[in-house]
Amino acid sequence: MTDWHEIPGGVTAPKGYRAAGIAAGLKPSGAPDLALIYSEVEAIAAGVFTTSQVKAACVDYCQQRLEAKASAQAILCNAGQANAATGAQGWADALESAQLLAIALGIAPELVLVASTGVIGQRIRMEQLRTGIAPLVAAASETGSGAAAKAIVTTDLVTKSVALETSIDGRPVRIGGICKGSGMIHPNMATMLAFVTCDAAISSHLWQKMLSRAADKSFNQITVDGDTSTNDTLLGLANGQSRTPAITEMGADADKLEAMLTEVCMRMAKSVARDGEGATILLEVRVAGAPDDAAARQVARAIAGSALLKAAVFGRDPNWGRIAAAAGRAGVPFDQEQLQVKLGDFLMMAGGQPLPFDRPAASAYMKQAAAGAYLKDDTVLISVNLGGGIGTGIAWGCDLSYDYVKINAEYTT
Amino acid sequence: MTDWHEIPGGVTAPKGYRAAGIAAGLKPSGAPDLALIYSEVEAIAAGVFTTSQVKAACVDYCQQRLEAKASAQAILCNAGQANAATGAQGWADALESAQLLAIALGIAPELVLVASTGVIGQRIRMEQLRTGIAPLVAAASETGSGAAAKAIVTTDLVTKSVALETSIDGRPVRIGGICKGSGMIHPNMATMLAFVTCDAAISSHLWQKMLSRAADKSFNQITVDGDTSTNDTLLGLANGQSRTPAITEMGADADKLEAMLTEVCMRMAKSVARDGEGATILLEVRVAGAPDDAAARQVARAIAGSALLKAAVFGRDPNWGRIAAAAGRAGVPFDQEQLQVKLGDFLMMAGGQPLPFDRPAASAYMKQAAAGAYLKDDTVLISVNLGGGIGTGIAWGCDLSYDYVKINAEYTT
Repeated sequence: MTDWHEIPGGVTAPKGYRAAGIAAGLKPSGAPDLALIYSEVEAIAAGVFTTSQVKAACVDYCQQRLEAKASAQAILCNAGQANAATGAQGWADALESAQLLAIALGIAPELVLVASTGVIGQRIRMEQLRTGIAPLVAAASETGSGAAAKAIVTTDLVTKSVALETSIDGRPVRIGGICKGSGMIHPNMATMLAFVTCDAAISSHLWQKMLSRAADKSFNQITVDGDTSTNDTLLGLANGQSRTPAITEMGADADKLEAMLTEVCMRMAKSVARDGEGATILLEVRVAGAPDDAAARQVARAIAGSALLKAAVFGRDPNWGRIAAAAGRAGVPFDQEQLQVKLGDFLMMAGGQPLPFDRPAASAYMKQAAAGAYLKDDTVLISVNLGGGIGTGIAWGCDLSYDYVKINAEYTT
Repeated sequence: MTDWHEIPGGVTAPKGYRAAGIAAGLKPSGAPDLALIYSEVEAIAAGVFTTSQVKAACVDYCQQRLEAKASAQAILCNAGQANAATGAQGWADALESAQLLAIALGIAPELVLVASTGVIGQRIRMEQLRTGIAPLVAAASETGSGAAAKAIVTTDLVTKSVALETSIDGRPVRIGGICKGSGMIHPNMATMLAFVTCDAAISSHLWQKMLSRAADKSFNQITVDGDTSTNDTLLGLANGQSRTPAITEMGADADKLEAMLTEVCMRMAKSVARDGEGATILLEVRVAGAPDDAAARQVARAIAGSALLKAAVFGRDPNWGRIAAAAGRAGVPFDQEQLQVKLGDFLMMAGGQPLPFDRPAASAYMKQAAAGAYLKDDTVLISVNLGGGIGTGIAWGCDLSYDYVKINAEYTT
């Protein structure tokens, strides 16, 4: 099931994809702000979107598009303006953006999906976008994933990219992804844009199911600040260019592909939590002993999202009491006399009662993790056992620092 | 209905109550940490408690006590140790505390209610509590409310106290209250302790109903950081010493009393939100146009609790987009094209679209509010109309500042 390996190339790692990212003048800073992902052939397409009642025009647009036909050939993404809460004009802008790209690419407008991120209530700077389309298309290349990853970020400190390869029927199959997001990150979905490309051949029905399930285990399990965005979008393309047999029902091949897709989404989700606004640590919360997996995930999210705990983690304070308190208010019934809490390898609570532990060593464990920020071993692991079932779940978050406040107090002014 | 007036005296304003607060050595700082509220006669008693699965011993104790008999004569509160997640020993400590106070007061142990606040997982310092009981009882007086209010705080910057008086059947009736809480404040309930005294004569059934409804409109509508505590407790005593006719069913007198009780709880709840850890502003969110009142309250809480909005308010940034985004993820369906958002008197969004507004003036409105912190006019008012019904609701919160992080990063270490 896990016989994949990492490869370079992001969304252009799978066969038959090109990408580009340019500075079109949408961001006042002059940083790259317009991205393209393009499949040489029409691809099966699926999406998972924000559950907010206030949705950006691009979300409405993609949902309508994918409902009409589950395929696409290009994704256009702009950063700087969210084009949310922009009414009829915002809708017209999304439509025009798709049409302009379709013309430049020489494809049908229905094959273009669009995504926006940035300040809510601001329309896309259409003048800049219009002049940016031609150079964007010209820049598209099979090595363009890095440039695209750079052009979709907002407050992100690092770009996020991953690609994995496995083999099906003796031939290589690849899934690549780029994503952005660092604030307003919370289930379900976040100001989080994620684009996945795949060169397997798969039915649209199965691809959508796989993408939704992968999102539940990854993007819907990360939380930075409890806020859900108007623009959250995960789009997945599968273009069949690997020339492997078409996957049309669940089975060994489908399981293999779904496991790799889930891994790609989990790696991206973790990279978003790790890059949480102001974060100095990646928090991984593993919950066991819940009535079922969904309940375990719910408790894990509540713990990863606790502002009090996040502030304690920022202070490198092994404050297990806040872990227990967050578990208690998660809305999942359990017997507090069975509760067990671990921080790293330090058992801090068992049978619902605190245990003596080496506080300086536990604090040192948290400090060591922080020193490895942006490396693989920067994770602070919290393990909780509710003692009441076989359900398990994982969630990821980050600490709450002065910089989170600074970033968000000064974003529009 | 609102013919009450404010009077001094807090929980000792109603007839027949005494209170005290002393430094018994429970807090490492040496600050006051042991409080007593005492009714000269047995009083009708009601309580509202945390909904967390992880409950402090004092919460279990009070719930069992009030289930057995809805009356009490004394409330003992310690600050410094929460006595939550302390297992059988914590339960024994709560029991012993109640018994020691009962002996000192010469009343039955069943007439004592207990409450704790402080660090989760720490037992009450029983040696200090044992030696503190005698001086605490000796200090009890009809002017002791202020001392009690001081002895129940933890990270609070100010003590919180209120008392109102009205007349029933031509005789004065009073309700007084003291409370504490500034972090971990979130529906339902929070690390929030509130004690209400009343000298009306009322049936226990009605008193419990009134207290629960008042909590729904007040303490359950404040949020500081989304965390719910293990210790949240609202206790209400009604001792009948006003010598007014007993209220045994709903009607004009009951309505009057409930309105005043609700007002007492709302004033206390607002004072808790205003004193949110690190807060520089009181945020009041009024929601209209919801399917019903409960839905309106839910949306109001989501807005008041948005970390992104709270950080923007700290930055005096009139970021209406974050208000719309928070409303959108509150779990209440509405038509985004009907959404209207106001900040103070500034209409920022109508028909789901942004409107031009005087940004410097709106920012100045927020700055002015901050300058009045701890005064009556320090409130930043956010009004949202969902355009879909007649439900209304209010919630209170505060901004998210560097100091919130600082306070909570350094609490136990």
